[in-house]
Amino acid sequence: MGKLHFACDYQEGAYPSILKRLEETNYDHTPGYGADEITASAKERIRNACDAPLAEVEFLVGGTQTNAVVIDSLLKSYQGVITADTGHISVHEAGAIEFCGHKVMTLPSSEGKITAMQIDAFASAYENDGNRDHMVMPGMIYLSQPTELGTLYSLEELTAISRVSHSHGLKLYIDGARLAYALASSENTVSLKDLAKLCDVFYIGGTKCGALFGEAVVIPDPSLIPHFFTIIKQHGALLAKGRILGIQFDELFRDDLYRKIGASAVRQADQIRKVLNDSGYRQMLINPTNQIFVSLENSRMKKLSEQLEFSFWEQSDENHTVIRLVTSWATKQEDTDQLIQILKSL
Amino acid sequence: MGKLHFACDYQEGAYPSILKRLEETNYDHTPGYGADEITASAKERIRNACDAPLAEVEFLVGGTQTNAVVIDSLLKSYQGVITADTGHISVHEAGAIEFCGHKVMTLPSSEGKITAMQIDAFASAYENDGNRDHMVMPGMIYLSQPTELGTLYSLEELTAISRVSHSHGLKLYIDGARLAYALASSENTVSLKDLAKLCDVFYIGGTKCGALFGEAVVIPDPSLIPHFFTIIKQHGALLAKGRILGIQFDELFRDDLYRKIGASAVRQADQIRKVLNDSGYRQMLINPTNQIFVSLENSRMKKLSEQLEFSFWEQSDENHTVIRLVTSWATKQEDTDQLIQILKSL
Amino acid sequence: MGKLHFACDYQEGAYPSILKRLEETNYDHTPGYGADEITASAKERIRNACDAPLAEVEFLVGGTQTNAVVIDSLLKSYQGVITADTGHISVHEAGAIEFCGHKVMTLPSSEGKITAMQIDAFASAYENDGNRDHMVMPGMIYLSQPTELGTLYSLEELTAISRVSHSHGLKLYIDGARLAYALASSENTVSLKDLAKLCDVFYIGGTKCGALFGEAVVIPDPSLIPHFFTIIKQHGALLAKGRILGIQFDELFRDDLYRKIGASAVRQADQIRKVLNDSGYRQMLINPTNQIFVSLENSRMKKLSEQLEFSFWEQSDENHTVIRLVTSWATKQEDTDQLIQILKSL
Amino acid sequence: MGKLHFACDYQEGAYPSILKRLEETNYDHTPGYGADEITASAKERIRNACDAPLAEVEFLVGGTQTNAVVIDSLLKSYQGVITADTGHISVHEAGAIEFCGHKVMTLPSSEGKITAMQIDAFASAYENDGNRDHMVMPGMIYLSQPTELGTLYSLEELTAISRVSHSHGLKLYIDGARLAYALASSENTVSLKDLAKLCDVFYIGGTKCGALFGEAVVIPDPSLIPHFFTIIKQHGALLAKGRILGIQFDELFRDDLYRKIGASAVRQADQIRKVLNDSGYRQMLINPTNQIFVSLENSRMKKLSEQLEFSFWEQSDENHTVIRLVTSWATKQEDTDQLIQILKSL
Repeated sequence: MGKLHFACDYQEGAYPSILKRLEETNYDHTPGYGADEITASAKERIRNACDAPLAEVEFLVGGTQTNAVVIDSLLKSYQGVITADTGHISVHEAGAIEFCGHKVMTLPSSEGKITAMQIDAFASAYENDGNRDHMVMPGMIYLSQPTELGTLYSLEELTAISRVSHSHGLKLYIDGARLAYALASSENTVSLKDLAKLCDVFYIGGTKCGALFGEAVVIPDPSLIPHFFTIIKQHGALLAKGRILGIQFDELFRDDLYRKIGASAVRQADQIRKVLNDSGYRQMLINPTNQIFVSLENSRMKKLSEQLEFSFWEQSDENHTVIRLVTSWATKQEDTDQLIQILKSL
Repeated sequence: MGKLHFACDYQEGAYPSILKRLEETNYDHTPGYGADEITASAKERIRNACDAPLAEVEFLVGGTQTNAVVIDSLLKSYQGVITADTGHISVHEAGAIEFCGHKVMTLPSSEGKITAMQIDAFASAYENDGNRDHMVMPGMIYLSQPTELGTLYSLEELTAISRVSHSHGLKLYIDGARLAYALASSENTVSLKDLAKLCDVFYIGGTKCGALFGEAVVIPDPSLIPHFFTIIKQHGALLAKGRILGIQFDELFRDDLYRKIGASAVRQADQIRKVLNDSGYRQMLINPTNQIFVSLENSRMKKLSEQLEFSFWEQSDENHTVIRLVTSWATKQEDTDQLIQILKSL
Repeated sequence: MGKLHFACDYQEGAYPSILKRLEETNYDHTPGYGADEITASAKERIRNACDAPLAEVEFLVGGTQTNAVVIDSLLKSYQGVITADTGHISVHEAGAIEFCGHKVMTLPSSEGKITAMQIDAFASAYENDGNRDHMVMPGMIYLSQPTELGTLYSLEELTAISRVSHSHGLKLYIDGARLAYALASSENTVSLKDLAKLCDVFYIGGTKCGALFGEAVVIPDPSLIPHFFTIIKQHGALLAKGRILGIQFDELFRDDLYRKIGASAVRQADQIRKVLNDSGYRQMLINPTNQIFVSLENSRMKKLSEQLEFSFWEQSDENHTVIRLVTSWATKQEDTDQLIQILKSL
Repeated sequence: MGKLHFACDYQEGAYPSILKRLEETNYDHTPGYGADEITASAKERIRNACDAPLAEVEFLVGGTQTNAVVIDSLLKSYQGVITADTGHISVHEAGAIEFCGHKVMTLPSSEGKITAMQIDAFASAYENDGNRDHMVMPGMIYLSQPTELGTLYSLEELTAISRVSHSHGLKLYIDGARLAYALASSENTVSLKDLAKLCDVFYIGGTKCGALFGEAVVIPDPSLIPHFFTIIKQHGALLAKGRILGIQFDELFRDDLYRKIGASAVRQADQIRKVLNDSGYRQMLINPTNQIFVSLENSRMKKLSEQLEFSFWEQSDENHTVIRLVTSWATKQEDTDQLIQILKSL
């Protein structure tokens, strides 16, 4: 028996029906760059799911790319983007935002989240600073839902952030790389429709949610970013065979698949969290989505690694390490059962 | 009966064995970002095909992206890239090179090609200009093989360009978006091994040569671009599930598939060119690869468009239009036969 | 006796009254960054001279810097700037515009000038191109008055260019590095007031027109570029002791000095042109400002260089060279008289 | 009697001998862009003062500009710059570094300073991070001497920082905007010669140290930044009449003027600090250069402001404000005497 795999939600290919659809359509002749009918259908499904009938929807290939393209589109040249200090754009995107000329301005976070109050304070401090014309002007807020740590913003929190951001002239953008796992969480109170109402732009993640790759950018008010297509091209982010993206999202938003994928992964994660809790494991934080952060003595971690592939998260002290377990569309009940046995017996 | 499709070589999905392989590997658990074994295998196949055992090979998603990443990697901040005025980077990449801060410097071209003599003259003029320190320094040459017009550089021409470029300290980079169709052409004299010897960097196109998407960058001397991986990430060009690219190129370079795909398309194109020639059509230029440029009276073009999908190329005069026909891996002999019948009877 | 100096209009310091004013104000205590009263006075003088009471006026240090800051301010990230192929931004600014991410798009020029018709054709071709979304969108026109070759746009020409540019949504920007010599030319038909009416932005050159350094950017409609001050800072173009610029332009626009400086230089140039004409010299082109382009046999050029400092312009053929003579505020009548004697006797 | 002026060290013009020299040389004819003999002399004087006979010395106009040009020259595209969180480049340069594509990475500071140990820890953490290829690589250290808060790095501290930086492959760059006041401080242990030995690049500030404007960049090993001249031009930072900079630094480094200017200002500041101390004022921190930070009750601050111009620094609590007093070359003993009287009687 090989190892169990809980390291990450992008270690496998794609949800099977996506591959099936790629095969069925393989010999179709379609125009490039997303001008085909399947892509049009996918966009329409997303508009419907978001209750945003006028929204511009564009499909990009990956998350860092999407963040760079959207942020560069929303900001003026002299503006920066505000994010949690744990935000993906601040830490793990190799400076892709700065490459576009923009400062990433960090706020201290709690469990991956920042608050409306922090945003208000930061923006007010800027506005009241006598030297503000010599400083980077904050132009937008970047959040992720779920956050890097799998936590969720509530509808109340997000409504407050949206209101306070807009009151300071800041755009609100949400990175939904793992959005399926937020939408499916029992604790979630924020729907796609809410996102479309509260955000200026957000993206619905495909790569980590069952697609081979791909992220769907939603711009509820299509007049917000003129010539977004050309901006995508300029960033080298335009896929020639655009329909490959269209097909994937047409599948993900057909028959409620996106929600089902999320629900399956969260169900597995909930089972694991329950066992961890029951068995007295220490979790770094508890979130209601598909990521689990467990603190282990190094010796137990080593033993666990013989049977299980997980992610190293951080050295919490000399003798303990936080590891991350992640479930996905590809996690089977039998894998989870085996993992539970291992955790119980460790 | 529907229309015949000869508009473009990226209107269909992927060569069937690629889809099959995606399906076979779908549940494999692999690390992300190309650190998997299939990707390693694909790289090794390409190194072998290029007789470049030390080469760094990296897979990117699309052509404009690849050009931007490679050119930005090769140039110093104060350098520009020299290209034919018809070059893809100069015309149809929405300023992706300038977005990275570099000037695109054009030379007049003949049938899509520039010469060693032109490069020598341009570089010498720069070197001898008393104001050169106030000017953009040329840093590299960008060619495509085949060119935008489907023509080929001969080994002799390319050797001369390589020699003259390097004598002026210019790097040589070749865009092989349609390289399969060059390699398979009966007139071709430049092998992958030649490219690896003559170029500093080149890429082997997948998107237009049978893959769903993907381009393989080859850097024969791996010390040339330190931290290329991070540069790729910074440009938003790193695919999370890197193996999706690895799988495609592992297939394309297994059992000689890349050459076969090229050969099939060129064979179809040759048949069409022969009929055009025999039937007295005027071709804008004749090339030995998979693109065909025919000048038609507008009335005949209109009639043809009822049965055939082609690309508009340019208005040659008030009454004539140049159209482009393109064959690909997906062009079947029966399609070509039908096209030939139509052309004969037009 | 030393050599005569006609190589360039920035070889000396500043018009004497500028130095005097710097000395008079040396111990004044003023706030930095142009927030002082002398700078305010200079701005008001320029607004008056331009009959543009609402205009935003900002002082920058040099020409390339000004072009980069203004062009980057006026363009969207996906837009480029149209210029004559001889334009300073295309040739002699070391890629400063591309450094800001923008393509410089050149039109063939005649005597340094481009026409409304060319602009119309270029913009229309873009608008009608089916692939335009994959191309750099033209966003503005860059002209210089006088041009690199000392020629002038007439009011009629400039009115046509302004009209056609705006009809295509293109901004119009004029580089007035040598504007004093245009304004003072007997052939000039374009006043500062005309520029303020026809352009979106233009600059009034100081460096080449009697200042130690400095260029005055005029934005007739101040709402056009929000946060221009911060953009200047971001480009590293903000002078700490802003009043040093204010003082210079307050002098240049007091008692009609800017016009007088221009008039003096053009008067000297006219005398030289007359002698050249009378003595049978061949001029590359004849312009009505402060630059003179003479084609000489190489042997005569060599002889001339023993007594005179001039600029090399270009090798016109194997045996002839075009040299450039330039007059300025610092050219004295006795220098011109000597030069005339030399030219007559050569 | 007007107000006393202690707000800032760039509120006046230039040290008188500089103006005198500008006047004496005003009618000299010299080539542009720093190719003149006075500039050559100034460079030689600086090389001598730094005991760096091979150093490349270039004169730029302002501090933000210099930082952007140098940092962009030293970093690879995928690298960032490490600075104290109080560093000028992080806070008050309007994103000029990010505009060039580079991340500014901050370390917490104490009295404006960071330590070799912090740098070592940060660089080691990067090197040991399994995800480092997805992160911005630190490429250099930015310090200022004196710091934003007027404090000084000792020779011992700087030697340790230099050693640890280079051991991690990091370049060391020092911003000497107020370097004259460091060099003249009785507590200073770091000479120009030390800077030339320990740094890869540093600049000697003119703007805040007696010049009208100007900063002298010193690159001890001239092979470090090829084509620095073109990079300066590309950033719009090249002064046409380069000699204006050369003249100023030729004066500043003649007859020990730069040190004298610094000494005079520090002497005044020392007197003020002594009185503050003797009279029981609370200083936010005590530094040995030309800046003084005093915490005052708001009511006293208001009263003080009737007679004195100072800088607001920060609101320390509801009832207290930190103000900054700054001395310069232009501070006269009689001004200091008056200020002392005021402070004693407040």
